[in-house]
Amino acid sequence: MTDDGTGGDSGDVLGVSGFGSVGYPKLVPEALAAREDAATLDLTVISGGSVGPEVDEALVESGAMARRYPFIGHEVLRQAINAGTVAFHDRHVAAVADEVRFGGLPSPDWAVVEAVAVGADWLVPSPSVGSTPAFVAAADRLVVEVNAAQPRGLEGLHDLLVRETPPGRDPLRLAAVDDRIGSSRISFAPGKLASVVRTDRPDTTYTFREPTAVDRALADELAGFLDAELDRNPAFAEALNLQFGVGSVGNAVVSALDAVDLGDRDVAYFGEVLQDALLDALDEGTVTSASATSLALSAEGQDRLFADLDRYAEQVVLRPVDVSNDPALIDSFGVVAVNGAVEVDLTGQVNSTHIGTDVVGGVGGSGDFLRNALLSVVALPSTAAGGDVSRVVPRVAHVDHTEHDVDVVVTDQGVADLRGLSPRERLTAMLDVAHPDFRQGLRDYRERALERGGHTPGGFDLAAAWPSDGE
Amino acid sequence: MTDDGTGGDSGDVLGVSGFGSVGYPKLVPEALAAREDAATLDLTVISGGSVGPEVDEALVESGAMARRYPFIGHEVLRQAINAGTVAFHDRHVAAVADEVRFGGLPSPDWAVVEAVAVGADWLVPSPSVGSTPAFVAAADRLVVEVNAAQPRGLEGLHDLLVRETPPGRDPLRLAAVDDRIGSSRISFAPGKLASVVRTDRPDTTYTFREPTAVDRALADELAGFLDAELDRNPAFAEALNLQFGVGSVGNAVVSALDAVDLGDRDVAYFGEVLQDALLDALDEGTVTSASATSLALSAEGQDRLFADLDRYAEQVVLRPVDVSNDPALIDSFGVVAVNGAVEVDLTGQVNSTHIGTDVVGGVGGSGDFLRNALLSVVALPSTAAGGDVSRVVPRVAHVDHTEHDVDVVVTDQGVADLRGLSPRERLTAMLDVAHPDFRQGLRDYRERALERGGHTPGGFDLAAAWPSDGE
Repeated sequence: MTDDGTGGDSGDVLGVSGFGSVGYPKLVPEALAAREDAATLDLTVISGGSVGPEVDEALVESGAMARRYPFIGHEVLRQAINAGTVAFHDRHVAAVADEVRFGGLPSPDWAVVEAVAVGADWLVPSPSVGSTPAFVAAADRLVVEVNAAQPRGLEGLHDLLVRETPPGRDPLRLAAVDDRIGSSRISFAPGKLASVVRTDRPDTTYTFREPTAVDRALADELAGFLDAELDRNPAFAEALNLQFGVGSVGNAVVSALDAVDLGDRDVAYFGEVLQDALLDALDEGTVTSASATSLALSAEGQDRLFADLDRYAEQVVLRPVDVSNDPALIDSFGVVAVNGAVEVDLTGQVNSTHIGTDVVGGVGGSGDFLRNALLSVVALPSTAAGGDVSRVVPRVAHVDHTEHDVDVVVTDQGVADLRGLSPRERLTAMLDVAHPDFRQGLRDYRERALERGGHTPGGFDLAAAWPSDGE
Repeated sequence: MTDDGTGGDSGDVLGVSGFGSVGYPKLVPEALAAREDAATLDLTVISGGSVGPEVDEALVESGAMARRYPFIGHEVLRQAINAGTVAFHDRHVAAVADEVRFGGLPSPDWAVVEAVAVGADWLVPSPSVGSTPAFVAAADRLVVEVNAAQPRGLEGLHDLLVRETPPGRDPLRLAAVDDRIGSSRISFAPGKLASVVRTDRPDTTYTFREPTAVDRALADELAGFLDAELDRNPAFAEALNLQFGVGSVGNAVVSALDAVDLGDRDVAYFGEVLQDALLDALDEGTVTSASATSLALSAEGQDRLFADLDRYAEQVVLRPVDVSNDPALIDSFGVVAVNGAVEVDLTGQVNSTHIGTDVVGGVGGSGDFLRNALLSVVALPSTAAGGDVSRVVPRVAHVDHTEHDVDVVVTDQGVADLRGLSPRERLTAMLDVAHPDFRQGLRDYRERALERGGHTPGGFDLAAAWPSDGE
């Protein structure tokens, strides 16, 4: 992908807009995938998070993609990574902007950005911010796709900036979750803009399923826990700032909020993704403001947001992901973080990314929030695969969050408050959140582990004997 | 431990000053251990970090201690924890101040604090700050031991504060590593002071061993890496802010600095512990200022510091550990973090705390720095036990730092720059840092793992077959 069309095995690095499958370029990746020499392009693709099929399916199927950071959302890409044909490393999404600028990841040769408007030295990104400001700043050249399917009024949601260079940069500081400290546009050096293409192709929208009995049980357990915590914890006496993941976890948290006595607390969302349940909570007034980096909305949710952008702009701010997920801001807001996971183990270690040795997604922002939140909750159904597999296991197949970083585990079966508990005590507390079908098996593991002794009883051979290891 | 002497199985929570075996109370824990009913006291002891034998040996041997957070430094305590007779959970030391205030750990009934001076509503802590300001703020009652063996002039080093309550607290902000934003004293409500005792018993001092050939080889590899990184990374063009662990790692970093072309860069230490090698570097002018929470000095080093406190107070600041290790400040200073470890594995996971199932120390501040540094380096000898055990293993026995949080591994054998590498690529890159005696075994593991496939090849059964699992 060069101006003179030499392309070939140039191994260009593309910094691509998009996060949560919105706001990503469509025509440029499709054109790259359609090239006869696609298989020799050897591209490194870095995005904010998940992006659409034009990037993560077409470029993989054509053989153009050699490397991918920091997150995967599509089956075709996932298979290529697990087969070892695309090299992938999973990064905390908050760190990517710094990493492309300061040597942690390759610096982009090209920034390929979807926008709702562009000028000679500025652009307004479409509804996903992610790491786009950093990609534009770091890239040598810029290609902008202006998408007429995205309303121009999205500019009203944006609060954009590129962080200063360390050492000596000031910590970020927001007076409130919906405070603004940047600009509604991304600026760049005029010579950087290589080309502008136009499209009106819409983004993928999310499909949310109806809550199941398990989802409702999880929401109930979460509500019980939050109720007690709001009572006991002085930090939440006046306000509650929440982050939660997308999909059933987010829905469970919002359902839980309806069941909790919030008193006259100010409740805000300081998280990563604006989703339907959050839009509902904003409309109902349960949540008064929201900070995120992107959207994960159904078609109906997107229509609702786009139809009323001016009103939502008073409550909703979209930020670069190194701001939305910034450790200092998460700390400052005393965030209660509630994130899903693939599985958790009896000592409180969390696997967010792997089934056995295969990666199935990415750590995303879960580590940014769990590590820096005032209260870190992992919420997940107690089983997977229609009840055949326990998500509470002796030892997780992959550690994305350590025992030091997880305070509380909630499932449809109960709450394990791990704060202050030793690993031995956790072996018992975690049984409460396991599905009854698997409790005896986990008890047996615990007995065998305790016989061995040690501060963190266990051993690889004992873990290998567990049926749902995924091996 | 109550005023009326009822004591018994009250299960009191003690917040104890001390960090790195200095600045801890001596007479009070000794008195508690000497009580006839010691074994029924059921005490929970929370300190900043490691403390002296009067706490972590006497209270354990007498049976008075039931629980301990967040770090262990003494063999007697370690044995009790691994045997399960004292409950322990290992915490990131930066988080403890918040945890005792906001429900993460028990709130102290008593703060037991060593000081160099005390008034009706203030004290000046002795040379360890740790979480003492938070313990004093959170505790119901306060006991102060004034230690005449510690010079009064230590006050000149202190920059003390208790962070605001989230949500809505401002991120911490320092204009320079040696900037001051607090007070030299800890204030408290006058009614809180229950008693003052006096002692002149000195703290334990550190004994550093002479550098070995392995230490020198590690320093050489580190120097080569730093030299190249300073050349390539724009973030380090003008200044370099370092953090490094205590002992041989710290010595290796300081030796490496002597061998690196620093140009006219300003070099500062933004870390956790002031140690002899750092004092040397300050005296020689290689390092111009230092921020830490405590001392880990030899007798000679301590004499040197104490004899010249006014001069050192111009360059050295001692802070609460939630400031010295604050994520926002580590980010702001673009810290290069260099920490030791027990072992590392082929995908870059790091074990800082366990040998097999036994805990041997604590995560301390290593996670605060590795997670938030601009560049995260783990530096360790390639072998342990006189060369019999590889510290580079297929899979670590315990994950304290995930594959997402470690950029570079350095041993006496070489450098593995893991940035941007997929797990499969890491399996190869990590061979370079293994000792030649173990490379064939690790290669064999790699082959078996690759045959299985997946994004992160491996499996508990393969890990269990490795000889140095410690099981």
